Amino acid sequence: MISPTAEYALRAVVAIAQGGGDAVVTSKLVEMTKVPPGYLPKVLQALRRGGVVQSKRGLGGGFTLARVPEQISVLDVLMIVDPIKRIERCPLDINAHSTTLCPLHRRLDEAAGMVEKSFAATTIAELLISGDDNQAPLCRPSKPLRLGLKPRR
Amino acid sequence: MISPTAEYALRAVVAIAQGGGDAVVTSKLVEMTKVPPGYLPKVLQALRRGGVVQSKRGLGGGFTLARVPEQISVLDVLMIVDPIKRIERCPLDINAHSTTLCPLHRRLDEAAGMVEKSFAATTIAELLISGDDNQAPLCRPSKPLRLGLKPRR
Repeated sequence: MISPTAEYALRAVVAIAQGGGDAVVTSKLVEMTKVPPGYLPKVLQALRRGGVVQSKRGLGGGFTLARVPEQISVLDVLMIVDPIKRIERCPLDINAHSTTLCPLHRRLDEAAGMVEKSFAATTIAELLISGDDNQAPLCRPSKPLRLGLKPRR
Repeated sequence: MISPTAEYALRAVVAIAQGGGDAVVTSKLVEMTKVPPGYLPKVLQALRRGGVVQSKRGLGGGFTLARVPEQISVLDVLMIVDPIKRIERCPLDINAHSTTLCPLHRRLDEAAGMVEKSFAATTIAELLISGDDNQAPLCRPSKPLRLGLKPRR
C-alpha cells in the first residue's frame, strides 16, 4: 500500500530515532534497516532535504532527527518520499465532476483520506514503544548504538 | 494508493454495471471509462478470469457482470488485478518478529487492513448511486447503453 521507498524511509527514521539523540552513521543504519546500501543514501538525502533528519560530518557525525520523535508523524515521512495520492479532480476530466467527484472516485479518495489521517496521527515515538523487547523495531545493531559509534564520514 | 490498473478495473466494472444486465461492448467501455484502448482488453480479460465479469461473443455480445453489483465488492475487483499487500511476515526477516511484527510494520499492516476492510464493505452497487444525476460515475456514452448496442465482436 505504501511504496518500497516509503517503507525504507520509515525504517531509516525509526533507526535514527533509536539513537536517542546520538548521531547514527550510515553503516549502522544499513545494518539496522537492511535497506540496500546503494539506495539508503538517496533516502537519507531526501529526508534531510525534507527537514526530518539532520546530518553532521566528521568526528561523532552521522544522522539525527531534526525534531523529537513525538513531533514527527508517519505522514511527515511519507509526504517527503512518496505522498499519499488524494483524488482532487476527476481523473476522467469530466466537467460535471470538477467540483464533486463521482461515487467511485469519492470512495477511493475517502480511503486515501482515511489512511492519511491515520498516518498523521501516528508519531515515530509510538513506533519505538513495544511491550516485548524482542519486538523492538528493526535489526539490533551489532554494537549498542550509544557505544562505540565510530565516525565514518 | 491503488495502482492505475486497479483504478481502471474499477472503472470497467462500474461501466459494465451501468449496463444494468445488458451486454456492453468494448468500444462503449473505452468511451465510458477513458481507459487506454490498448490496455482495456487486458483489464477485462483479468476480470473475466477472476470471475467478476462475463463475456459473450456475437450478436448482442459484450460484457456483463458475473454477479449482481450488490454482490461484488471493491475489494473483489482489487484482489483480481492488484491485491492490497498485507505485511504477513517481517520484511527484514528478523526471527524474533516472525510471529509478531514490530510496531512499525504492525502499524503499516493495520493501515492496509483498514483499507481492505473498507473496500470489502463497499459494493459496486453503492458506486452507481448518486444523489445528483450529474455525478453518475464515468463518462456518459454517446448513445444510451440500453439502445443501439451494436455487436462488435
